[in-house]
Amino acid sequence: MEANGLGPQGFPELKNDTFLRAAWGEETDYTPVWCMRQAGRYLPEFRETRAAQDFFSTCRSPEACCELTLQVRGCTKEGKIYAFSLPPSNLSPVSYSHCVASLWMLPSFSPTSLLYPRCFLPLQALGMEVTMVPGKGPSFPEPLREEQDLERLRDPAVVASELGYVFQAITLTRQRLAGRVPLIGFAGAPWTLMTYMVEGGGSSTMAQAKRWLYQRPQASHQLLRILTDALVPYLVGQVAAGAQALQLFESHAGHLGPQLFNKFALPYIRDVAKRVKARLREAGLAPVPMIIFAKDGHFALEELSQAGYEVVGLDWTVAPKKARECVGKTVTLQGNLDPCALYASEEEIGQLVKQMLDDFGPQRYIANLGHGLYPDMDPEHVGAFVDAVHKHSRLLQQN
Amino acid sequence: MEANGLGPQGFPELKNDTFLRAAWGEETDYTPVWCMRQAGRYLPEFRETRAAQDFFSTCRSPEACCELTLQVRGCTKEGKIYAFSLPPSNLSPVSYSHCVASLWMLPSFSPTSLLYPRCFLPLQALGMEVTMVPGKGPSFPEPLREEQDLERLRDPAVVASELGYVFQAITLTRQRLAGRVPLIGFAGAPWTLMTYMVEGGGSSTMAQAKRWLYQRPQASHQLLRILTDALVPYLVGQVAAGAQALQLFESHAGHLGPQLFNKFALPYIRDVAKRVKARLREAGLAPVPMIIFAKDGHFALEELSQAGYEVVGLDWTVAPKKARECVGKTVTLQGNLDPCALYASEEEIGQLVKQMLDDFGPQRYIANLGHGLYPDMDPEHVGAFVDAVHKHSRLLQQN
Repeated sequence: MEANGLGPQGFPELKNDTFLRAAWGEETDYTPVWCMRQAGRYLPEFRETRAAQDFFSTCRSPEACCELTLQVRGCTKEGKIYAFSLPPSNLSPVSYSHCVASLWMLPSFSPTSLLYPRCFLPLQALGMEVTMVPGKGPSFPEPLREEQDLERLRDPAVVASELGYVFQAITLTRQRLAGRVPLIGFAGAPWTLMTYMVEGGGSSTMAQAKRWLYQRPQASHQLLRILTDALVPYLVGQVAAGAQALQLFESHAGHLGPQLFNKFALPYIRDVAKRVKARLREAGLAPVPMIIFAKDGHFALEELSQAGYEVVGLDWTVAPKKARECVGKTVTLQGNLDPCALYASEEEIGQLVKQMLDDFGPQRYIANLGHGLYPDMDPEHVGAFVDAVHKHSRLLQQN
Repeated sequence: MEANGLGPQGFPELKNDTFLRAAWGEETDYTPVWCMRQAGRYLPEFRETRAAQDFFSTCRSPEACCELTLQVRGCTKEGKIYAFSLPPSNLSPVSYSHCVASLWMLPSFSPTSLLYPRCFLPLQALGMEVTMVPGKGPSFPEPLREEQDLERLRDPAVVASELGYVFQAITLTRQRLAGRVPLIGFAGAPWTLMTYMVEGGGSSTMAQAKRWLYQRPQASHQLLRILTDALVPYLVGQVAAGAQALQLFESHAGHLGPQLFNKFALPYIRDVAKRVKARLREAGLAPVPMIIFAKDGHFALEELSQAGYEVVGLDWTVAPKKARECVGKTVTLQGNLDPCALYASEEEIGQLVKQMLDDFGPQRYIANLGHGLYPDMDPEHVGAFVDAVHKHSRLLQQN
């Protein structure tokens, strides 16, 4: 089955649609599982690639981005390679049967934040200067300081046309995947993007960005609207290029309490979903399931489940049973094993996965970690995680 | 009324016990309010003191610590000085009527973490070497890497005797306060202290400390027991020296999900309360109310309300109404205005405070921010916060 048969390149037929069916709320025989990762965090192959050329030329090379996306690999206890290795053509399609989705991604330098390097591409297209600070990730030498700084930003309508190299990378990756698993596109949500633009780099409190919300609410809304206007065509463009699902990361949700979140984050999260769906319809593109992942956004779970997304991602601080009680069966939940649980023995990983699956239940569920893979994870333990999800979810189905 | 009349120095009578009565769950005429702050974050006076001498000699000078503790000041709209200025003896007692509690504290270099510099004193007493890294806060050049590193630690029984200078500073501060407000002692909770010992400094993921929990559960429990054994006499010593309430900071609760928290944090939090109370009884000291503040520990609110503490502190991500629903009337709640809300206009601060007070209700409640004051807060806005709490809580009482 091909969920998005309208890709411009005549993509190969999708051989495993378990992830997509779970995302749409359809019944599945087992629980699909995938992991978010930054290439730079995880694989020696990436470090070699990175060393070979500079960051921005890598971002702009569809061929390099495609290679990096396909640099996911691991080996399960049963000896099956559950994910991708480079070059993927060296492996037979059956080798990939255990991996149900691949996050399209760009290379990363930041060891601390999943979003840093990839989410800022639309900001660069909006006219924000970005430099790479080795060991620290991207930095904006001229962050937004005053309301009039918004005038520096370019028309959000140009963003999609500036990011053609992203779409080319997606198309190339989708072709190379050869239908083995679906490809997920993504973007940072407006509030999270705003924090980078105002802070200019990392921050433990996001106090400068939050100062805008309290002192310049109108300018903040103006900025969040600009970002929403930029994100909609960017996400639609990813689907047109071949992305079969979309994930929106609100990584900095936890810096907002319920009041600020409802005022400055949620309306734009809702708007992105609504407008992306409308634009896909207008363009005659098949709909794709959309995932919202608001890290540390425990307080907004109910609101997020009604925000127009098919899937709500959870970090590891939310108890699965409480999350299911809160959202009911209206959405698919995704998550949420503690990323550090992969430090445990393979036996304990199995026990933790079993508990998680029991608590989430067998349907309307996509297994994942509660955040991205950390750089020092043992790929064999990632394999143990994937194996345990498949094994226990099939047992759950039988009972 | 003097809640702890057994201090060794014959302390002056306490003139305002509103904070203590709210902590014990007794009725109050208005809502007491206090703020946590690091001296270094907030006051130019502190920077001068700090510049004049090095960090460790400041820590070890009871006179310097006392001065820094009393360096809290602000002016309300009504023209009343609501807190302390230096030297306090220049102000008449009535000037202090609006401030209900002062957190005893040591000077700080870290702009990012409330706990860094003050909570590590017991760790230094346990034998961990600490150096100050300008602009970054304290660093442990030899963090715990292996299980056998636990053998390096000194007997936790010696900790209290090593920290005599802390107790002297408390006694001096209590005397200088002259009964105007109660004095709160504090410490970091075992899990939070463990993160510093294993990470060696700051970390955005606490992955090294969490690796211990997953890979060395027995050694982790051993370390957490050592820390608990050190904390109990340290906290009892603070009360014996004059502290009239105690706050335990579990600042890194949010890195643990519900499972790890219940296994590695909660049992020690419970144990600290139980043993401190027992030791106070044995020593013939009057009991003091105890506050547990587990930052980002939304998932453990119910468990914390049953952990033996009279007060549960909340960060700003927890909706007041939901917190009250969760814990009922069994404990006093403390918190939780977003620290960044002090960036808002004084009028908006008033509206936010009114909403918060309405949601928490007038009794069994202590107003506070959801974390410490940030370094760039306008003292006048802190005053507006304090004024608004007093004004709206009196109106609430009348209705």
